[in-house]
Formats: sequence, structure tokens, C-alpha cells
Amino acid sequence: MPENPYITRTPPRAVGLLGGGVIGGGWAARFILNGVDVRLYDPAPNAVEYVQKMLANARRAYRRLTGVPLPIEGALTLADSVADAVRGVDLVQESAPERLDLKQELLATASRAAGPDALICSSTSGFRPSLLQAEMDHPECFLVAHPFQPVYMLPLVELCSGERTAPKMLDRAAAIFRAIGMHPLVVRKEVDGFIANRLGDAISRESLWLVHDDVATLQEIDDAVRYSWGLRRAVMGAYRMADGGEGMRETIEQWAFKWPWSRLTEKPNMDRAFLDKAAEQADALVKADPLDVPTVHKRDDLLVALLQGLRSQGYGPGETLARWEQGLRERAPLPQLHDGSGRLRMPTLAVPSDWIDGNGHVAESRYLQVCSDATGTLAHYIGIDAEYRSQSGAYYTLETHLCHLGELHAGDRIQVSTQVLGVDDKRLHLFHVITREGGERPVATGEQMLIHVDAGTKRSGPVKGDVRERLFGLARVHAQLPRPDRASASIRLPPSSVS
Amino acid sequence: MPENPYITRTPPRAVGLLGGGVIGGGWAARFILNGVDVRLYDPAPNAVEYVQKMLANARRAYRRLTGVPLPIEGALTLADSVADAVRGVDLVQESAPERLDLKQELLATASRAAGPDALICSSTSGFRPSLLQAEMDHPECFLVAHPFQPVYMLPLVELCSGERTAPKMLDRAAAIFRAIGMHPLVVRKEVDGFIANRLGDAISRESLWLVHDDVATLQEIDDAVRYSWGLRRAVMGAYRMADGGEGMRETIEQWAFKWPWSRLTEKPNMDRAFLDKAAEQADALVKADPLDVPTVHKRDDLLVALLQGLRSQGYGPGETLARWEQGLRERAPLPQLHDGSGRLRMPTLAVPSDWIDGNGHVAESRYLQVCSDATGTLAHYIGIDAEYRSQSGAYYTLETHLCHLGELHAGDRIQVSTQVLGVDDKRLHLFHVITREGGERPVATGEQMLIHVDAGTKRSGPVKGDVRERLFGLARVHAQLPRPDRASASIRLPPSSVS
Repeated sequence: MPENPYITRTPPRAVGLLGGGVIGGGWAARFILNGVDVRLYDPAPNAVEYVQKMLANARRAYRRLTGVPLPIEGALTLADSVADAVRGVDLVQESAPERLDLKQELLATASRAAGPDALICSSTSGFRPSLLQAEMDHPECFLVAHPFQPVYMLPLVELCSGERTAPKMLDRAAAIFRAIGMHPLVVRKEVDGFIANRLGDAISRESLWLVHDDVATLQEIDDAVRYSWGLRRAVMGAYRMADGGEGMRETIEQWAFKWPWSRLTEKPNMDRAFLDKAAEQADALVKADPLDVPTVHKRDDLLVALLQGLRSQGYGPGETLARWEQGLRERAPLPQLHDGSGRLRMPTLAVPSDWIDGNGHVAESRYLQVCSDATGTLAHYIGIDAEYRSQSGAYYTLETHLCHLGELHAGDRIQVSTQVLGVDDKRLHLFHVITREGGERPVATGEQMLIHVDAGTKRSGPVKGDVRERLFGLARVHAQLPRPDRASASIRLPPSSVS
Repeated sequence: MPENPYITRTPPRAVGLLGGGVIGGGWAARFILNGVDVRLYDPAPNAVEYVQKMLANARRAYRRLTGVPLPIEGALTLADSVADAVRGVDLVQESAPERLDLKQELLATASRAAGPDALICSSTSGFRPSLLQAEMDHPECFLVAHPFQPVYMLPLVELCSGERTAPKMLDRAAAIFRAIGMHPLVVRKEVDGFIANRLGDAISRESLWLVHDDVATLQEIDDAVRYSWGLRRAVMGAYRMADGGEGMRETIEQWAFKWPWSRLTEKPNMDRAFLDKAAEQADALVKADPLDVPTVHKRDDLLVALLQGLRSQGYGPGETLARWEQGLRERAPLPQLHDGSGRLRMPTLAVPSDWIDGNGHVAESRYLQVCSDATGTLAHYIGIDAEYRSQSGAYYTLETHLCHLGELHAGDRIQVSTQVLGVDDKRLHLFHVITREGGERPVATGEQMLIHVDAGTKRSGPVKGDVRERLFGLARVHAQLPRPDRASASIRLPPSSVS
């Protein structure tokens, strides 16, 4: 679906979620971390606790996923009825168990209570939207929006309209899901299971045949996939490897007309004994190697690493991530002028565990990264946005002087305060002080000289317009501050040293 | 298969390749870049040209994949017969087209010419090894070693023995493939198509049903996969998502006993008209977006990014990569005193793609990382090893002054030369110059002051023993060098500036 850049990039204010299990909880985490209030209806006694746990996992993953400050979290409130959950929200998302009658009833109730304009979506993995909307007062407001586990990490959401869905509702849904960092894919024809799960099920069936016939264990099947085409499909999907039409022709002819290499044409008949065997292997797979356990954290860390790898290439899910970050950046809160000192106080951040190197230390380059990020936040504060960057220019670092005065550890919360030491037409001289939250003693200081590079000439050139006004205003305020002792210091050994 | 650490990690000296197409060419590139001589037999007139092209692509990809210096490349020579190709090599790898009679004949010829001890493998995607070894003089030396495209990038190689294969040959093959950076997976039972391709074919069949029924185009199917479980399977394989036995039980019961969501139980009958449609869509997919074309370079860059992401987590294919790099490192040369200048010249490294941020730049903190790594290499050079660190102490950075004079890009090869500006009992003053390989103009400079911290007291203390001797010796040599202009410089705006 071509993206319409004019559709709002702002997430909705509030959503109503029906069901807070593994899918609904994932939706809750994704919405809340995007600043959206969530009204949850789930009759299970521990529903809120479950969602809070998933939210904690998602919070941890997002901290690793992006350096861009997240918005203030949305609020999670428990609704005591479907009607209570859906009243006044921008979107209702149903994620109940896969039982058609249950879903139909929930959706009908939601449609009555939400009114004629509310967008209502179902997370169903397989039921056709025309079936689901059958009992609704406002079927035109309904469509399927099918996400993938973990919902707060994987970008795909399959959108599928039913016979009675209004096209504008499809557009509205796509805009909302994009704003919370997802990639909407419109399924053009109603079909049980939509697209991605049908393919996933095909793999499952063939895999279980291999287990059934004792050709491979689940562990071996997992290894076969993740060391080979599993890696490839993350970037290429199912068909990118075929060399266009000719390759495709060969591929089809080979498997369709020549070799019956898979068992897929037979109908499986899998009895209890087989179920037991497969369940046992699945248990073994999880227990095989304690260091290799697929805990939620490990899984999320791996997905984070893949998404960041793809972001570096601006491709597919990585491009979705970059677009989401851009949206976050545009809506990020500004740093505050510190009440006492007048220095610019940057948003607090936590040291993620992946900053820790093999010897248990935070690599020194991370301290520079903290300073770079603070400089980026200052640029945002003085009004350097995408428009200014494309029209006028941006600051680039010429020099940094970093002093290490203490050590950071995983989980430490860091604060950076920044002082403008000087500006001229083109240059900007900054001094960052890194402390632990609430602490006074600096852990490190970073002094930087930046140069303003003109967007047109690509050479150094004067800072312009409102950005200049804001920057020079800030510099005048900071000119009243005492100059830090370490400013303009140089690195040298005293004369007594052997040199 | 458990890894035996006592099996050699050194790649073989020479291999004979039968067939130099997309698979054989990939093998050639992987072997040559691992320092292995390749003797190629392929009757096609442009075989060497084709392999050279693939080698160039692989060379480009490996420069991005790893910062560890690669060994000197193996030589590629064209053999004029099968016998000529296989004589005296450590491994024969057959990658002819998938025709049983052709493969049987090639393998029989190779077995006669290679002698009783030569390991002979086939890259077949589907034929059972017992069939392939039927006509061989030495069937005990034969097994299937099935790789995946692109062979120089994807780590999996499925090893499958035939009825007459000797177990020690399986071990020998596994050791060789590990030494060239692969992950051997033993297929325990002979089966057409082995493991990974059977699953891949299952996806293909279901995908083509979707195309056949006009549910989705190939483009939509590709997007559905790479934005959802394609991403997940790269890290989780096929089954890691199931929560052990219980999850597995539910999964099986759901699809096997409840919903027929896929078409897989029917036998496809795909005629020419359908072939044309699918071929057309595959062409459209390739041509759809010129920026999104799956060129070999783009594909390789994406796989590099994923592998590096997984390496950062030490997981699966990333762990295979790390193990290969460790082997390379153990065989890599130490830093050299530069012939001309006397400065310490660090091993060349390549800018990996995961250093590139969302805006296409190398983050400034990476330049500091390059300096830190150079300091680490210097420490290694003067003899600071695990024993010295635990008994005596180590150097920690107090200050860094970084100057940016140019910009690095993904794939650039970097050289760092390091000068000792001064030492005393506790302190060490270094100056790093970062250039592009072969270039003169510095891209950045990094000046650092380090302090020696005593292993016992955990406070600053004097450097000791042989390490002290080597360091002071190096400092005396470097005292003859001119002092860099930027040494001991400070960051300041000239008095004329507004401050």
C-alpha cells in the first residue's frame, strides 16, 4: 500500500482493548509505550498483572531498540465492561481467544457501545472479516488487523476488509498502525488465515512430518532454519532470491513437475502418541542449553539486534523502525533549563546492559555517545528540525575532549547537563557534565566544538534565522555561568615525566 | 553435533571443485577468501569469469562482515579434467546440475582419480547420498554437504551420510566446514531434500497457491514474510516460539485437528497459464522499485547487517561468525612497527555496516571505539595479557581528545597508526591517527592519557616488569618522531567570538 505522507503521524489519544493475553498484552505494551492511553477489558483475574509484566519486557526492549526518547507512557486502566472499555476511544482492538461465536458477540457489543464512527479491529489469526462483522451495528467501521508475536516488536499488521467495511476505515487504521511503528499490509481478498500465517502453517506441517518420520528433531529443524534461509527470509521474504521470471519458472517447474521432495500433498493423521513425541522434543529444545534458553529477554534482544541491523541499511522492517523514530523525535519533549544553574538539563536515560563489555565495563565510546546524544537534544531544543536541516544546515562535531572521573554501571540512570561556552557565526562550543541521577559528582565531562555546515554549499556557513536567535539567547544566559575548570584544558604529561 | 575442540581449526590447503555455477562459484569464493587454493573443473567457456565475478562480490561482502584481517587469498586455477581437479586436494566438492546420472558419473570419475583417502562431497539439494555413492570406487569417502545460497554468506551446511559412508569422513568434513566459517548440521536419516529445503519448498507451495487463487501477489507475500515471522525465524528457527511442550501441543492440535487454513492437503495442478502469471509477478517484484532491487550487493549488505546483529548477541549464526573470526585472529599478524615512520601500525579493519546510524553517518562514538581498540592492540603488543592483568594491572583511559578531519563510510578500510608521546611510572600518553587504507590525510586523530591501575590495590600504581621494559623501549623509539601538531591542543573559540 503506497504511503500517504499527509495522513497524520500522531498516534491516537486512547484505545480500548478487548482481551489482554499474549496478543492483547502485546498491543497494550505497544500502545502505552507510544504514549497512548489503554482501556483494557479482560475478565481474567490477573489480566492487569499479565499486561504489566509484558509492558516491563517491552519497556526493556524499546530502551535497547532506540536511543530516541520515548513519549510519556500512556495510562493503563481496567474497564469493567466492554462498553466501558470502548467509550470515547479512537480505536477498539479485539484480541479474544479464536472462537467465532465469542468474537462475534464481543464485536457486536463493542459496536453498539462505541457509536457509529469508532474504528473497530480484530486481531484474529484466521477468521474472515465478513463473518466477524455479521452481527455488528456498524459493520462498515470494522476490519481485521492481524499482528504477530511479539506484537510490541514485529512490525507487520495484516489489514483485511470484509464485504461491508468502508474504505476510509482501512486508511484510518493504516495511519494509526504506522504511527505506532508498524507496517500495515492490505490483504486484498478475504481468505482464512490471511497471508503470513498460511505460510507459517505450511512450515509447521512439513516440520511435523519430519518429526513424525524421525528424520529430524525439532532442535535440528530449528537449527536448519535459522542458519540457512531463516536468515535470508528476514531480508528477502519468500521470493526475493528468484532471479525474476526465469528463476521463478525454473523453481516452479522443479518442484511442481519434477520432484516430490516434501510430504505436503498427503493429509497428516497425527495421533496422541505423535503429539506426545513432539511435545517432548519441544520441551527438550527449550531445556537443551541453559545459556541458549529462548527467554523473552533473549528473544527480544535478538530481534532488536536484527532490527537495528536492518535500520543501518534502511531496509524493510529497519526502514519502518527509522520512520517510527523520526516520528518520536518530532514529538519528543524538549530539554529543560535547569531551575538552579540555568544549564540545559537533558532527559534522564538508563545505561542498557548491552553497553557493558566482556570485562564488565561500559566501553569508553559509550560516554562519547551520551555526549553526542546530548548535543543532538540541544540541537532539537534550539529548533533544528528536518526542515531546518534540509533548508539551512546542521552542526557537525569537529572536536571532543572527554574526561573520565568515575564509572557507570548497567542500570545506572544518567543525567547530562549542558552549558554553551561560546558561539560565533559558524561555531558552537559546548560543555557536557554526566552525573548519576541525583548525584553531584561528575562521572565524566565532555567538551565539544561543532561547526555549522550549510545545507546548500555543504561547507561551513552561518547558523540562520530562529535557530540562531534561540542559540544566541541561550549563549547569553549561559555566559553568566561560571566557566568549568576543565574547559579548554589540554592533555599533557608534566615535564618531570619520561618522554 | 557436539563440537570437538581438538579438531583442527585450520582450513585445508587445496580443494577441487566440480562445477562453478551459482553453488560451485559460491564455494570457490568461500574457500579462496579463507586462504584455500581452488582447482575448478567446469566445461562452461565462461566458468572462470563467472567465479571471478562471484569472488569479487564475496570479497566486498567479507570486508563489511568482519574487521578481522583475512588471510592471503587462495589461488583459483582451472583444471582441464575431473582427474586434474581432484588430484592431491584435501576435499572434492561436486556442484553439478541436479541430474542423478550426471552426478553419479562425475563422482565415480572423481573417486577413481582422487585415491582412497580423499574426502568427496556433493552439494546436491535433494538426492540421497546412498544413490550418489552407488558407482564410486571409494563410497566410504563420500557424503552430501548441502550449502545454501549465497554459499559465501549463509553458514548452514547439511551433512548427510549414505549407507556406505565412513563415520570418520563425516567428522573430517565437519571440521573443514567449521574452519571456513560454516555451521555443519548432521542430517540423521537419508531423506530426499534433507531438512531446510523441504521446509522451504513447503512455503513455496503454499505461496504459489496464494498467487494461483489471486489472494496475494509475490510482492505482498514477500512483505508479509519479511515484516513478520521472517524476522523471527532468523533468530528462532521454526519452533523457538512455542513455549515448550504445552505450546507445541496447542499448536499441533490447532492446525492438525481444527482449522484447515492452508491449501497444503491438496495436490497442486499448475498449468502453463499459471506459470506465466507467477513468472510475470516475479519479474514485477524485481522491477517494482529500482531502489529496492535485490541486487547481490544489497542482499549481501543486509545479510551482513543481520549476521553482525546476531554476533553482538553471540547467538546462532552470529556465534558461528564470532568463532570464525576468533580463528582468523589467532592466525593474524601482530601490529607492526611501521618501516618508514617507526609508529605502531595497527592491523587494517573495515567499517562494519552496523556502525552506520539512521542518517547514513558513522556515529562519532565509533571513532573513539577505533582509538580504544588501537590502545588495546598496543597493550597486547607490549605484553599485557590475561596473566599480567590479573597479577599486575592494566591501563585505563583518563582523557581523550578526538579531532574529526573527514568522514568514514560503510566498507571503508581503516588504518590506525599510534605514537607514544610520553610515559611515566603510571601514565601513558598516546596519539592515534586514523586514515583510510593507503591514504595519507587523516580522517580523525585521537589523543589519549591513560593511567596504570594496580591489580592488587585497585588504585593507580607503576607499570611493571617486561611490560614496562617494552613500553619504555617503544617510547624511546617514538621520542625521535616529530610531535604531531595537534598534540596537547585545547578546544577554544578565538577571543573575537561571541561568548
